[in-house]
Amino acid sequence: MKKKYMILLGALSLASSTFAQTWIWYPGDYEIWLGNQMNNRRTERGAFFPPFWKTDSHYVVVEFSKQLNLAEPEEIFIAAEGKYNAKLDGKLQFGMPETMLLPAGKHNLNIKVWNQATPPTIYVKGKTVNSDSSWRVTYEDKEWIDESGKASDTSATVYMVAGCWNFDGATQRPSQFSLMREPQQPVAQTEQSEGGTLYDFGKETFGFITLKNLSGKGKIEIYYGESPEEAKDKAYCETLDKLLLEPGQITDLAIRSTSPLNNSDNEYTLENSKAFRYVYITHEPGVKIGEVSMQYEYLPEEYRGNFRCNDEELNRIWEVGAYTMHLTTREFFIDGIKRDRWIWSGDAIQSYLMNYYLFFDNESVKRTIWLLRGKDPVTSHSNTIMDYTFYWFLSVYDYYMYSGDRHFVNQLYPRMQTMMDYVLGRTNKNGMVEGMTGDWVFVDWADGYLDKKGELSFEQVLFCRSLETMALCAELVGDAIGKQKYEKLAAALKAKLEPTFWNIQKQAFVHNCVNGQQSDAVTRYANMFSVFFQYLNGDKQQAIKHSVLLNDSILKITTPYMRFYELEALCALGEQNAVMKEMKAYWGGMLKEGATSFWEKYNPEESGTQHLAMYGRPYGKSLCHAWGASPIYLLGKYYLGVKPVKEGYKEFAITPALGGLKWMEGTVPTPNGNIHIYMDNKTIKVKATEGKGYLTIKSRRQPKANIGTIEQVSADTWRLWIDSPEERTVTYRL
Amino acid sequence: MKKKYMILLGALSLASSTFAQTWIWYPGDYEIWLGNQMNNRRTERGAFFPPFWKTDSHYVVVEFSKQLNLAEPEEIFIAAEGKYNAKLDGKLQFGMPETMLLPAGKHNLNIKVWNQATPPTIYVKGKTVNSDSSWRVTYEDKEWIDESGKASDTSATVYMVAGCWNFDGATQRPSQFSLMREPQQPVAQTEQSEGGTLYDFGKETFGFITLKNLSGKGKIEIYYGESPEEAKDKAYCETLDKLLLEPGQITDLAIRSTSPLNNSDNEYTLENSKAFRYVYITHEPGVKIGEVSMQYEYLPEEYRGNFRCNDEELNRIWEVGAYTMHLTTREFFIDGIKRDRWIWSGDAIQSYLMNYYLFFDNESVKRTIWLLRGKDPVTSHSNTIMDYTFYWFLSVYDYYMYSGDRHFVNQLYPRMQTMMDYVLGRTNKNGMVEGMTGDWVFVDWADGYLDKKGELSFEQVLFCRSLETMALCAELVGDAIGKQKYEKLAAALKAKLEPTFWNIQKQAFVHNCVNGQQSDAVTRYANMFSVFFQYLNGDKQQAIKHSVLLNDSILKITTPYMRFYELEALCALGEQNAVMKEMKAYWGGMLKEGATSFWEKYNPEESGTQHLAMYGRPYGKSLCHAWGASPIYLLGKYYLGVKPVKEGYKEFAITPALGGLKWMEGTVPTPNGNIHIYMDNKTIKVKATEGKGYLTIKSRRQPKANIGTIEQVSADTWRLWIDSPEERTVTYRL
Repeated sequence: MKKKYMILLGALSLASSTFAQTWIWYPGDYEIWLGNQMNNRRTERGAFFPPFWKTDSHYVVVEFSKQLNLAEPEEIFIAAEGKYNAKLDGKLQFGMPETMLLPAGKHNLNIKVWNQATPPTIYVKGKTVNSDSSWRVTYEDKEWIDESGKASDTSATVYMVAGCWNFDGATQRPSQFSLMREPQQPVAQTEQSEGGTLYDFGKETFGFITLKNLSGKGKIEIYYGESPEEAKDKAYCETLDKLLLEPGQITDLAIRSTSPLNNSDNEYTLENSKAFRYVYITHEPGVKIGEVSMQYEYLPEEYRGNFRCNDEELNRIWEVGAYTMHLTTREFFIDGIKRDRWIWSGDAIQSYLMNYYLFFDNESVKRTIWLLRGKDPVTSHSNTIMDYTFYWFLSVYDYYMYSGDRHFVNQLYPRMQTMMDYVLGRTNKNGMVEGMTGDWVFVDWADGYLDKKGELSFEQVLFCRSLETMALCAELVGDAIGKQKYEKLAAALKAKLEPTFWNIQKQAFVHNCVNGQQSDAVTRYANMFSVFFQYLNGDKQQAIKHSVLLNDSILKITTPYMRFYELEALCALGEQNAVMKEMKAYWGGMLKEGATSFWEKYNPEESGTQHLAMYGRPYGKSLCHAWGASPIYLLGKYYLGVKPVKEGYKEFAITPALGGLKWMEGTVPTPNGNIHIYMDNKTIKVKATEGKGYLTIKSRRQPKANIGTIEQVSADTWRLWIDSPEERTVTYRL
Repeated sequence: MKKKYMILLGALSLASSTFAQTWIWYPGDYEIWLGNQMNNRRTERGAFFPPFWKTDSHYVVVEFSKQLNLAEPEEIFIAAEGKYNAKLDGKLQFGMPETMLLPAGKHNLNIKVWNQATPPTIYVKGKTVNSDSSWRVTYEDKEWIDESGKASDTSATVYMVAGCWNFDGATQRPSQFSLMREPQQPVAQTEQSEGGTLYDFGKETFGFITLKNLSGKGKIEIYYGESPEEAKDKAYCETLDKLLLEPGQITDLAIRSTSPLNNSDNEYTLENSKAFRYVYITHEPGVKIGEVSMQYEYLPEEYRGNFRCNDEELNRIWEVGAYTMHLTTREFFIDGIKRDRWIWSGDAIQSYLMNYYLFFDNESVKRTIWLLRGKDPVTSHSNTIMDYTFYWFLSVYDYYMYSGDRHFVNQLYPRMQTMMDYVLGRTNKNGMVEGMTGDWVFVDWADGYLDKKGELSFEQVLFCRSLETMALCAELVGDAIGKQKYEKLAAALKAKLEPTFWNIQKQAFVHNCVNGQQSDAVTRYANMFSVFFQYLNGDKQQAIKHSVLLNDSILKITTPYMRFYELEALCALGEQNAVMKEMKAYWGGMLKEGATSFWEKYNPEESGTQHLAMYGRPYGKSLCHAWGASPIYLLGKYYLGVKPVKEGYKEFAITPALGGLKWMEGTVPTPNGNIHIYMDNKTIKVKATEGKGYLTIKSRRQPKANIGTIEQVSADTWRLWIDSPEERTVTYRL
């Protein structure tokens, strides 16, 4: 088995291909297909549970083409997933050629593939001619001929640049992709008085249960739990499996799939992975199970970012956050590993941001963005949720800023346009978005009533930012008309925000406006977003800090999801000390409850099994939810204080803040390097192996640096330009 | 083998399901998937040759639902193609249940299926609960829940009515569909002096070559020909197969597929069917082939229409036309059986019209219309051809008129709207269509220069008719706003036709208008369409007859494709005698050249192997092309003279015309009956088992009828109202 994993490792290395050749496909199509595999693995108590939004699919016929200019003749090897043909200078070759001799000189090579079940992909390997992202692809080559046999010269075919990942070997067929596996043993197993055995794997995990040395005949039932209560509650646990053991074979009763037992040790590993810490297994008397273990399933990731400090609780928060991120970073960034295991745009944008401070795994970001967008026509908001559409736009520009990957924006831009067309087709007479039939206006899971009617200030703020994002991306791809159009729309909407939603008495944006009337309610959402979008002047931002953000009478946020933005807003206002206390109270609170990964929702006022319930179900809550891991992001961006100022960290900003810690140390990854920070109450050390930028320091006297000149910015603020990888050591006074 | 065919026969019976249960799917999706199988079977000299337009695919996740109201509990059986779940009143059942017990009372039953490779389909059989077209389907159920677990009540899901055909048995899985097969033997075989054997199957046919009593080892090559010249031309024949025989197995070298030989008689039948009359087979010396035969592949059709007359040449024309139609009526109506075997809208609309006078096979019409439309977004014209988009619109209303199937129009209407949106998005400032980059302006394969630039009068006439069709369909589905919109657009365009294209000197529509300037050219196309669309007054129609239709100096039409409309226009102008001569000369001409099916193109001025060439290839021409069969339509509609006046023959019009024949007799099918006509130069007999309508008679004196009263319409025209199935016998004077 070891050898198999080694081979897979090649396919799973995370950087984009550096080989001369790789499997290629229509951009976004493999991602959408793989996403369907992922989204359709959800089960609920043994029932298959696909998403309720439109599931798109790949183009089933795709043409790949490449213009060649060969100094000498060359033989190429061709592999494809699907039925295919090959044309050289318009001349079809016999059959599905595995090899082709290309003559020297200028030539056109075309390969066309049909595949209904999995995306059409090809792999070409020659001395100089290799399949890679320099190939063009289209789903519609429009190569008609006239009566004389002459091909049309006005076909207007739309070509894209081929998509790829890291399937660099001829036998690494993209449709055969799977994550890595590693056997793990339970740390404890307890016979239960009512029968059956409870296995504890020590912490939240994800994988396939393996049963060894099976013998006898009869039913086996497996109940999964993120808590022991859940695993032992046969009637209400969220996931389960039922098997029928017979001599030499075993049947998964949910999917009616029968497999032979592994000969040597009568072993069986389940076909679908599950999330759990505990597993409760019962069986009929005729069955014997020798051993229970699991195959941990994961995407190999390098932990390029890290954080350590003097506070062990905070260190543990960072570690559990990183583990939570790793469990939810899979084929895609998913929300939580237990329940739906789906890809959600609002969850994903937070995963991306955390990822930039942990794995810097661009491929997973791009896969997830492609999948969430899907195909045209747009028939609903992203995951049906209005706010999630807006996060999707924002995530594209975030990705560009962190990665500097303009090519991706180019590839995606046409689908950004059609997505925005959908939104613009659903605005009201004020140019604002309101929930229409079919729109899920989500905002947050709140412990209290959230009005979703009329114009929500929160949705307008996100809409405005999305329009600004469209303008920025239009500029990136050279769409001058689009830039102008989106800028105009964004400016018009932005100009309406204060007149419509700002309430002078409340010194805040109200929650919504129905039929032109401001509601009485103030919620945190629009207010905190306008802070870090800088949609309000400094006075109003400070006003919001007190009237909303630090005001306990405003409906509290009980999801880490919105805490992410709430705490980001406070950090942006310089409240690192207050946020540090909140982090320790909130995420520390989960740790005290025994969390080994962070939760979907946490209300410190609840206790015991109350923490497990959600959606009216006793174990409905996910105890490993990506949005629970936000300290990863906050600590990197607002304590280590590192962020890109120009795309791909060509320029960075470093503004470290101890927030009450004695010392901290950590690394923030950049596309091809990293920025290492150490800080205590006297010294700051910075080593940036890539990029240039300012280190900004709060100090009561002029700091001193080993290299470079410190400039004063304001009374207590100083800055140092960093433009080389040598470590800067700065002394300052807190 | 016989038994297998018998079972398939059930699946292939042509009427819509009359069973209590049938396999169901998302409407159009199965049709699109099956069409992909069909369109991707084209090969060119052993190379796979898929279409150059966008190949759409099915929705991969589909939900089927049914509201139940059961008098008593009932057990149902469930089968599905794909991974599925079942919900009763929102509660998911364990696994993929094969049976479910439904309690008495009102309940909601939902079944959701995921299938990437083939369309999600289901089959439900109970005492009263059965899958049929009363089920609703959606690709997006938008069933989100709030935090309490409550499902949304504003999901705005768009439901369609389930699609089905005739897969009425639980084991008749739609994805397993195949046409019927019947073994056929060659009528002659000739050893060739240069080696190899030429087999003649006696007439144009379609199927799979079978090789029997194979022995030895080596390559076998099979060259197909519609003519002996083609089959024997190894270098230029259009289709071929290459096989490698080895002990006990044989490999198709084009698709690299190895099969064992049939044990008992070392037999092998090829995987892909081909069109041919002749097959030339060569092999390496080590190979022995005992016997060559074929499996004729066909869609079983009942010949509901027929025609006989005193002229044996015309009878033969009808028979060869019917055979041509049968060969090209397959999973879909295809253009020709040899070369591309694709589904083309302009070809299909003629097949539909012929079909109404031959098979009246509505299912094949509907399948073809669904496939040709495909899915949104629309990225090109139908088959990339502008005119073909317009024929597609026209074909929908034609189908409604002949079948009376309003349900189909309802199902299709949303895709008619988006198709028309595409067209309207490509009009110029005059509201007219011009060929833009990416538009194939086809018109016809002409033996002379056809200008495709600017505003073609022909395209505007078709566009105008398409807008009128949209208005009619909008009314049918109750879209009052759409009706108004399309009527307005149609009227505006129609009002521009004469001012833009009518040339007083030429007494005709000119061919095109470039930059506001009429061209000098007059072609037949727009002129003949305006005749049977009645876009011009009687005087202008008569003018066209002489200035264009009967004017030999106007570019001649050499495809049966446009002859269809040319002769229809002449018939509509009462020129049955002239058209009869043309039919005998043109189709009779092909018969004299040895045609056993009608051709893609026929120019009487060519001779010998000139008849085989097209597209710059010596055997490029298809000798079995659906559009070659138009006498089927002309004889039914303009000689037997039967057509629907109200949808589904609720009212018919019968206007028989001998056109110079001594006598004729025939049957025209109606949805649930038929109309039988006999006519000689003294007597007309009509028996209509369905519908009501006028029999119109040209007679120099008042005709006499056995039933009913003859009314006078004009000087030499009389009519008789028919409203019962008894045979009417009318005597008249020619």
